[in-house]
Amino acid sequence: MTPIITAFEQSPDHGTGQARDMRVRWALEEMNQPYDVRLVSFSEMKEPAHLALHPFGQIPTYEKGDLTLFESGAIVFHIAERHGGLLPDDANARWRAITWMFAALNTVEPPLVDREVAMLQERDKPWYEQRQPVVEDRARKRLDELSRRLGDADWLDGTFTAGDLLMVGVLFRSKDSGILEEYPNLSAYVARGEARPAFMRAFAAQLTVFTTVQPSK
Amino acid sequence: MTPIITAFEQSPDHGTGQARDMRVRWALEEMNQPYDVRLVSFSEMKEPAHLALHPFGQIPTYEKGDLTLFESGAIVFHIAERHGGLLPDDANARWRAITWMFAALNTVEPPLVDREVAMLQERDKPWYEQRQPVVEDRARKRLDELSRRLGDADWLDGTFTAGDLLMVGVLFRSKDSGILEEYPNLSAYVARGEARPAFMRAFAAQLTVFTTVQPSK
Repeated sequence: MTPIITAFEQSPDHGTGQARDMRVRWALEEMNQPYDVRLVSFSEMKEPAHLALHPFGQIPTYEKGDLTLFESGAIVFHIAERHGGLLPDDANARWRAITWMFAALNTVEPPLVDREVAMLQERDKPWYEQRQPVVEDRARKRLDELSRRLGDADWLDGTFTAGDLLMVGVLFRSKDSGILEEYPNLSAYVARGEARPAFMRAFAAQLTVFTTVQPSK
Repeated sequence: MTPIITAFEQSPDHGTGQARDMRVRWALEEMNQPYDVRLVSFSEMKEPAHLALHPFGQIPTYEKGDLTLFESGAIVFHIAERHGGLLPDDANARWRAITWMFAALNTVEPPLVDREVAMLQERDKPWYEQRQPVVEDRARKRLDELSRRLGDADWLDGTFTAGDLLMVGVLFRSKDSGILEEYPNLSAYVARGEARPAFMRAFAAQLTVFTTVQPSK
């Protein structure tokens, strides 16, 4: 059975891979798992049919038979656990990979998203100039810690796992904003992720949505 | 083998259950699993010995034999998967519970923590009065969506799961700040969590740290 994911019909990022369906596409591509995509408009995302799938009115969702999931972390974990390859066989290593999944989403992503939201939504506010250095410092603190832990390793804990997939996915979103360049090892880490064939296929697939002329509804 | 968790030696919350060891203690108590606690000072948290356990220099950590975990979400999930009872047996229901775990930590917690951080760290800043309504609205948007999904159900998806444990844990932290009172069903949901004997034991245990005279080191 081919799973169906949802993605933005018109993405605020214009196909630069910032939307969270990118992570799910990447995980599916790592598993060579075909999938279908249902595009949703911003208004459809707030309608009852989509809210039944995703209570917070966002993308991505994942439907396969009678299973419906939301939250990119949970979907990536489901794909990883169902297909193998993105989680180590060794029990302790598997738990450490799961820990990195949560760390990516609950510890590293929030200060980066805060910074992004401030840059996007508060740039014209009177407090922006004064407050932004505080926000930048919070993001840098987390990146300092992550950079120190990664050191010169290729991946966070041995081989590439779903933890790396989500961490690279989180860091990738900040790539064009300059902050990642301050950390050569994190930049190289993201580049290693981007160089994976599955990442490239996922990136190309999400970009196609925005480079193809879509029929009007 | 008794697991060892870490918790604040001197908590910024003075034992009101705001620290993230509360969630882990609660999960362990739900499983009737004994555990030991190692208290760490703020300076110890930034030292190499603790950073080896937790790369972001925070609490809680979880050690059991040769397994070391960090991230309260990963630890709660580990406890739930190891012992049973906090995750449904039905495969689809189990995945939905895991989805709620990620939703609690990656979708609901960030705007609530932002609001908390602004209230704690930015109250004396010149922008606070102007910016705080924006922050409050972001938090309210998520609580609106969560409240609508919960409706008049006792728990998010049938029986109490690790997803509810983390969601109640996240909401509980905002309880004393007024915002939760705007949502009677979410307030009642948190109260149901707090009424669980395991929650009460966990709360009492974390409070004891701060009401007991500690020997000087």
